[in-house]
Amino acid sequence: MKRSIATVSLSGTLEDKLAAAAAAGFDGVELFEPDLITCPLTPAELAAQMAQLGLELSLYQPFRDFEGVGEELLAHNHRRAERKFALMGSLGAEVMLVCSSVNPAAIDDDELAATQLRQLAERAAEHGIRVAYEALAWGRHVDRFEHSWRIVQAADHPNLGVCLDSFHILARGDDPQAIEKIPGEKIFFVQLADAPCLHMDVLPWSRHHRCFPGQGDFDLAAFMAHVLTAGYEGPLSLEVFNDVFRQSDPARTAVDAMRSLRLLEDRIARRDPRPSRSTPRWLASLAPAPALERYAFVELGVDAVSEPVVEGLLSALGFHQTGLHRSTQVELWRNGRAAVVLNRDRRTKSPHLTGVAQVTTLAVESPDPDCSVRRAEALRAPRLIGRRGPREVELPAIAAPDGVSILICPASDELDCGWLDDFIAPGLSHASELPLVDIDHVALSQPFERFDETRLFYRAVFGLEPRPGHELAAPDGLMRSQAFVSRGGRVRLVLNVPVVGAISPPAPDAHHVAFSCPDVFSAAETLRAGGVPVLAIGDNYYEDLASRLELPDELLVRMRELGICYDRDGGGEYLHLYTPLAGARLFLELVERRGGYDGFGAPNSVVRMAAQRASLRALGVA
Amino acid sequence: MKRSIATVSLSGTLEDKLAAAAAAGFDGVELFEPDLITCPLTPAELAAQMAQLGLELSLYQPFRDFEGVGEELLAHNHRRAERKFALMGSLGAEVMLVCSSVNPAAIDDDELAATQLRQLAERAAEHGIRVAYEALAWGRHVDRFEHSWRIVQAADHPNLGVCLDSFHILARGDDPQAIEKIPGEKIFFVQLADAPCLHMDVLPWSRHHRCFPGQGDFDLAAFMAHVLTAGYEGPLSLEVFNDVFRQSDPARTAVDAMRSLRLLEDRIARRDPRPSRSTPRWLASLAPAPALERYAFVELGVDAVSEPVVEGLLSALGFHQTGLHRSTQVELWRNGRAAVVLNRDRRTKSPHLTGVAQVTTLAVESPDPDCSVRRAEALRAPRLIGRRGPREVELPAIAAPDGVSILICPASDELDCGWLDDFIAPGLSHASELPLVDIDHVALSQPFERFDETRLFYRAVFGLEPRPGHELAAPDGLMRSQAFVSRGGRVRLVLNVPVVGAISPPAPDAHHVAFSCPDVFSAAETLRAGGVPVLAIGDNYYEDLASRLELPDELLVRMRELGICYDRDGGGEYLHLYTPLAGARLFLELVERRGGYDGFGAPNSVVRMAAQRASLRALGVA
Repeated sequence: MKRSIATVSLSGTLEDKLAAAAAAGFDGVELFEPDLITCPLTPAELAAQMAQLGLELSLYQPFRDFEGVGEELLAHNHRRAERKFALMGSLGAEVMLVCSSVNPAAIDDDELAATQLRQLAERAAEHGIRVAYEALAWGRHVDRFEHSWRIVQAADHPNLGVCLDSFHILARGDDPQAIEKIPGEKIFFVQLADAPCLHMDVLPWSRHHRCFPGQGDFDLAAFMAHVLTAGYEGPLSLEVFNDVFRQSDPARTAVDAMRSLRLLEDRIARRDPRPSRSTPRWLASLAPAPALERYAFVELGVDAVSEPVVEGLLSALGFHQTGLHRSTQVELWRNGRAAVVLNRDRRTKSPHLTGVAQVTTLAVESPDPDCSVRRAEALRAPRLIGRRGPREVELPAIAAPDGVSILICPASDELDCGWLDDFIAPGLSHASELPLVDIDHVALSQPFERFDETRLFYRAVFGLEPRPGHELAAPDGLMRSQAFVSRGGRVRLVLNVPVVGAISPPAPDAHHVAFSCPDVFSAAETLRAGGVPVLAIGDNYYEDLASRLELPDELLVRMRELGICYDRDGGGEYLHLYTPLAGARLFLELVERRGGYDGFGAPNSVVRMAAQRASLRALGVA
Repeated sequence: MKRSIATVSLSGTLEDKLAAAAAAGFDGVELFEPDLITCPLTPAELAAQMAQLGLELSLYQPFRDFEGVGEELLAHNHRRAERKFALMGSLGAEVMLVCSSVNPAAIDDDELAATQLRQLAERAAEHGIRVAYEALAWGRHVDRFEHSWRIVQAADHPNLGVCLDSFHILARGDDPQAIEKIPGEKIFFVQLADAPCLHMDVLPWSRHHRCFPGQGDFDLAAFMAHVLTAGYEGPLSLEVFNDVFRQSDPARTAVDAMRSLRLLEDRIARRDPRPSRSTPRWLASLAPAPALERYAFVELGVDAVSEPVVEGLLSALGFHQTGLHRSTQVELWRNGRAAVVLNRDRRTKSPHLTGVAQVTTLAVESPDPDCSVRRAEALRAPRLIGRRGPREVELPAIAAPDGVSILICPASDELDCGWLDDFIAPGLSHASELPLVDIDHVALSQPFERFDETRLFYRAVFGLEPRPGHELAAPDGLMRSQAFVSRGGRVRLVLNVPVVGAISPPAPDAHHVAFSCPDVFSAAETLRAGGVPVLAIGDNYYEDLASRLELPDELLVRMRELGICYDRDGGGEYLHLYTPLAGARLFLELVERRGGYDGFGAPNSVVRMAAQRASLRALGVA
């Protein structure tokens, strides 16, 4: 057995959890006792169900507040344990987790704890059960793993070992190097959890904010390297207490969990040097993530209401329709290297006054599409079928967690690269009055409850690197905005998500596609000359800009006239403008990066959101 | 002016916020600069709008990172300030908040800070503006209010004073007593925020988790007593950064804010001794909250599908129909002192297989209904109209935040108290085969985003006292469960709410009404004899109970046979059983309290929820 997950990491009934763990490919589960207590199945029925699903029961947990007690309580605790040993027998569980006592009355005496745990191990041995003693980070007297190991050493019984939980060790800031001093065969179990660095009390941090490896700030590959160097050969088991996962579809969460574990294994396998003593044979590395080169195109889904609006906008931005797709009713629009595919679903007409338009596909160029796909499949990214590409060959497509398709195209240096053959009469790019260079970035709004999954998805599957996040005080609530950028920097994706979920949420932020242009002022003037409106930005914004940045008056006046926003960082400047909303969920942006500006104009996003909200309200929509 | 609120405390556009603050009765607002920057109105238009709404602009905030800088940056900062002073002139704002610098490069030199702040105050004076200097709890060098006061003293300018923010002071654990050393006229502004004790970094704690006074753990009445003793005569202003409020209907949030402020004023006014020097005349106490004596009745709303199910359940629990309401189609059912009113809406038939039934009204007995109503009105609890009571006199009704009506009835020692006259032929209670005593408690599920408001509502309006909360690991997510109990202990209300919100939330937990009975075993046997099903509790629950509590085997066997759950605390025991769901959102409970048991069987709630979920799934609903 290799990969395990604690039932507490998943939502639903115990039966839901087992089904989800099995479907995601786990070999076993840790059975969290409250899940058993609320389950209507008998232990024997459960054991049968797990056998049918191909799941081992890797751990029964937790058994609490056992050690460091007086005689009377000890007798009660032994009786308590005997009943659980019998239960474990019916379940077919061989390892019990005993966590260090949190009882305020527990006696602070290592020798007593060792003696009592030895007695427990002796009784466990009679049932063929092994006891894994874990130091909770908030244990009354034993709250560090080295302390639990000293007690296990003193108890000196073959059926007593330690359980190591990465959260309890790393949240305390303990050096996991010392794990190597523990003989591998005395590490009875390893629980893995990541967590964001929250600088809060360790108990609520653990109970609410754990996440899967790679979703937080802990270095779990380093942690595991020490564990493997110690000689541990047991399962890697995910034990993640997370408020959001507890509410989410367990089948999705289990796949997310498996993805995180595969990525962790890859990182361990790629460490130099690899863990010294006993790297397990199963520790296989993944196909590497080829660095995505650029956006081949972005596909926009439009309905009968939004279609003419989006077409009008694309025309105004200098796009020309250059081809119809061979097999489906989609159109290719191009300006420079920027390509947009319009997918018209003429059957539907949204009930919104503004119609609905949104990003439906991101087509990205990979230098090695096969390798990209192999990696995606190994990381259990869902394959989509039915997407046709160059010369009617199917282009591989992956479903992102929010339902957007990621189409993997071969990279090409040519302006008319292979996949374009798929469009009838692609033609050359027309000379445009408003010349654009390429797609600068795409921004997608995300549901609150999938953000951890989504961030890991783009990092793990496509190797996009996260940039530091921003909090945006949008008019309808605080948003978190985080950018992901490919190595080489040309595929840039911004994800926006509400900071808290709500039962009656505000409308999600719109999707947008930003195009780079050589001169945003000239672009803005072309738009103005054509009578094309730009999202109106209020004077108060420019007044504040003047106060903060002391830009030249002339520049400020031109920006104000043309609705251009401004940001700068250590590397350079960012000048950009927004189109009005084209449908309730889409707008476009024109950006000019000067120098090495590396951001996305985040400080201006709230100004944009407020202006969009005002425009929707004027239409009677918001 | 007395009461103010910062625009950052409310959701929406600046115009939404102003309208909400005015409607809730605030006298003024603190203008949070980002709200201005994103606002399309000119400063003059805003000033006119505020005048029209009767709102003063009590503070312009924040001006950041001014002091402790070198010459060049100082010159820039003065130019920055000059533009803001001019803006404040257009807005009609007279006080600017300057918060202590968080710039890592700020110079740690109190004398320099004082000199520079004095210069700022001199320039402000030319515009008729006063500068309120605030120590942010995470300021680079100045992070405590006594430090900011030393600098203000050293600067010694009439247009420079301090701003005191309760969060920054109390979150650091500073003793607010020292506020009394500051002359009242040098306290230019007071910002009030409460917060739960979260033991986390002060900056994210402040930015995300502030709440209105009375919703957190700070003693703001004591804080304000020191402020008033110092001689402060300015506004009380709420500045609350809260992720949930930022997403919520601003009109509701503003009313919640006003309620919290009125309650705080009451608490200050009732302190003994009252603040010594200058208790403002406006500091008026509220009518006291009469201790609610008992539930007069609970009204259940049923539809055509759930009606026969609920009637069947009530009959099975020994209730008899004793009256029809004179003026509406409602029925009174009674058993002992327990009274349930069934409100049949025969027109609707819910799409659910199970129909919908839920608690719609809590009728509570007050020893002084007039006083209860005066207090509710002063605390801006929404009055409902059209509820008729005894002798066709309208009984006052209040809408709780979740929409449940609270009907205030006169207290009576008689079994047939006054309000029953309203039912035709109320009759006497029939002798019942299954004798009940009274309503033990009512439990209502609540939406995530209103929990702070709801807790304050029941505490402030009805004087219910909160008990320590529990977290319940329900099958569809973590829930928080908190009980509220009247003085005297006979009106008990349990609120259950998800710990996090989600965009696709699980079904809310059901409402339930628990009835006390003298002998739950005999009640259970009566039900069994009548063929009435009880919610099935699985064997694994009893096995765990046996292990944990070592109850006598005989007791365990009987409980298991009859579906009775068990809990105990220091005071006594709690034996209870649940009925099956009667409609998707309602079930009933029978409870027997032995000795001084003071809880609600919280450890058994998750077992109950899992069993209900299984029963719904069996019906194909969940």
